[in-house]
Amino acid sequence: MGRYIFGIDVGGTTVKCGLFNTEGNVLDKWEIVTRTEDAGEHILPDVAGTVLEKAREKGIRGEEIAGLGIGVPGPVNENGEMPVAVNLGWGYKNVAGELEKLTGWKVRAVNDANAAALGEMWKGGAHGYRHVVLLTLGTGIGGGIIINGKVIPGAHGAGGEVGHVHVEDAETEICNCGNRGCLEQVASATGIVRLARRVLESDDTPSVLRGSELSAKAVFDAVKAGDPAAVQVAEKFGEYLGKAMAGFASVADPEIFVIGGGVSKAGTILLDYIKKYYLRYAFPPCRDAEFALAQLGNDAGIYGAARLLLD
Amino acid sequence: MGRYIFGIDVGGTTVKCGLFNTEGNVLDKWEIVTRTEDAGEHILPDVAGTVLEKAREKGIRGEEIAGLGIGVPGPVNENGEMPVAVNLGWGYKNVAGELEKLTGWKVRAVNDANAAALGEMWKGGAHGYRHVVLLTLGTGIGGGIIINGKVIPGAHGAGGEVGHVHVEDAETEICNCGNRGCLEQVASATGIVRLARRVLESDDTPSVLRGSELSAKAVFDAVKAGDPAAVQVAEKFGEYLGKAMAGFASVADPEIFVIGGGVSKAGTILLDYIKKYYLRYAFPPCRDAEFALAQLGNDAGIYGAARLLLD
Repeated sequence: MGRYIFGIDVGGTTVKCGLFNTEGNVLDKWEIVTRTEDAGEHILPDVAGTVLEKAREKGIRGEEIAGLGIGVPGPVNENGEMPVAVNLGWGYKNVAGELEKLTGWKVRAVNDANAAALGEMWKGGAHGYRHVVLLTLGTGIGGGIIINGKVIPGAHGAGGEVGHVHVEDAETEICNCGNRGCLEQVASATGIVRLARRVLESDDTPSVLRGSELSAKAVFDAVKAGDPAAVQVAEKFGEYLGKAMAGFASVADPEIFVIGGGVSKAGTILLDYIKKYYLRYAFPPCRDAEFALAQLGNDAGIYGAARLLLD
Repeated sequence: MGRYIFGIDVGGTTVKCGLFNTEGNVLDKWEIVTRTEDAGEHILPDVAGTVLEKAREKGIRGEEIAGLGIGVPGPVNENGEMPVAVNLGWGYKNVAGELEKLTGWKVRAVNDANAAALGEMWKGGAHGYRHVVLLTLGTGIGGGIIINGKVIPGAHGAGGEVGHVHVEDAETEICNCGNRGCLEQVASATGIVRLARRVLESDDTPSVLRGSELSAKAVFDAVKAGDPAAVQVAEKFGEYLGKAMAGFASVADPEIFVIGGGVSKAGTILLDYIKKYYLRYAFPPCRDAEFALAQLGNDAGIYGAARLLLD
């Protein structure tokens, strides 16, 4: 097997690229623009172009390359095909197949959140574990479930899409997925802002959050400063998320939960609020699951994509 | 590999035993009593005794035996060890290891609900599928999750223990697991009776359920006869279970859900009430999951236990 792997993470605005050795050391890292025009038809040729160019630049021959892994935003089946990727302008696309043709290398494709979970298991917050649930709390909520070292893609590419678990019957607004009361509506960065707005509107107790721009960061900064309204928001967030995670544990029973995404920058205080409620609702044998923050930040996806080639 | 497999399902009162060929045909089937006295120390020697005797009786030599699979009531890790099995009187037990010593054969052990799930995939309601969630609605609720043909034992042997997912904040009674508001409290056979009692107590509309002995069967018989109170119970049951299953789909994303256990004798009407709410709450890509009734009844466990030897 070759000594080099390319790990690619396709986002709606940029494509993150990494060149790794098989030990998981990143040798080079760069980005290109995601050209979503023309139904996204340039994206995969652009990826192939940049990695072939990088290989030439580094003097790496084809037989030295173990392959290329790619994470893409949307459901991906076990053959590396996507029914649709709204953010990229794609309808059905055989991502792995097309990139194999374009590069001549072995290619593996997975959902981007699943790639991030693999990355965190390989070199991040879940290093050394084999049964992992990763939650990425960003604008939305992504997730990845790893069982015995392998990611669960699911029968419809929706394995680990835990942002759309129903958690609130009383929700009146509609989630991006079309349902109402999804976890993403109350525990993502935007969800925390919604919770904060509702708490602030419910009474008029003084709060440092009033009058300033609301964000997940502002809320958790205020929690650290002891602001009562912010603490109320953190409790609600913790109850929604901890209770939902207790449910995930009854299905997948992980050794460790890893929390990533922008919201995780709040630090370990986040885990305190989640664990409080997780312990209240979890099935007793699952209560000693560990909790950790993600460590690879925006690089988790390229690490995990590269890791796909080592199975 | 040998041509014969023993499949064993240990329950609290009887041990079900089956002799299979590797194609999955059952060649013989019998039961022995589960001797739970003396901290259950006779159970595994009894199992070894009966299968060794059966092999002698059938003239099957040791090299013709592929091994023995056993399903046991409680959490089992990947090495076939249990921390505890309350119903059998066991503390820690290396089930696979002890039976290997007693028989001299290869032994695999899993949780009984996981064995049932494998059995239904091999020869029952999920035949031909590779991604399966089985729910066993009996006195309690058991579950088994199969991903790519393999059961998920979980890091604490609690993979698929979905009976203890929290579904009702307002629950005042305590579940067997020590929590409040578990799925098992509202969607098992005993849970359906509890729901029925609460519906009947909530007003005094006439119902065929009044005055007769309440059971899950009586409730669904009354549903088929159009009894309004029974329909109300079925709706509540369907909402709890369908909503919870939508959550399981966001984690494991199965091709098919299979419903077994005593409650499943109500027939496909059960699936109608579950699907109605599953479709309301499921993440859109998971909505085309199929629903089926279990087909192997009380034999699912011995089939699945035997199936363990074919991996």
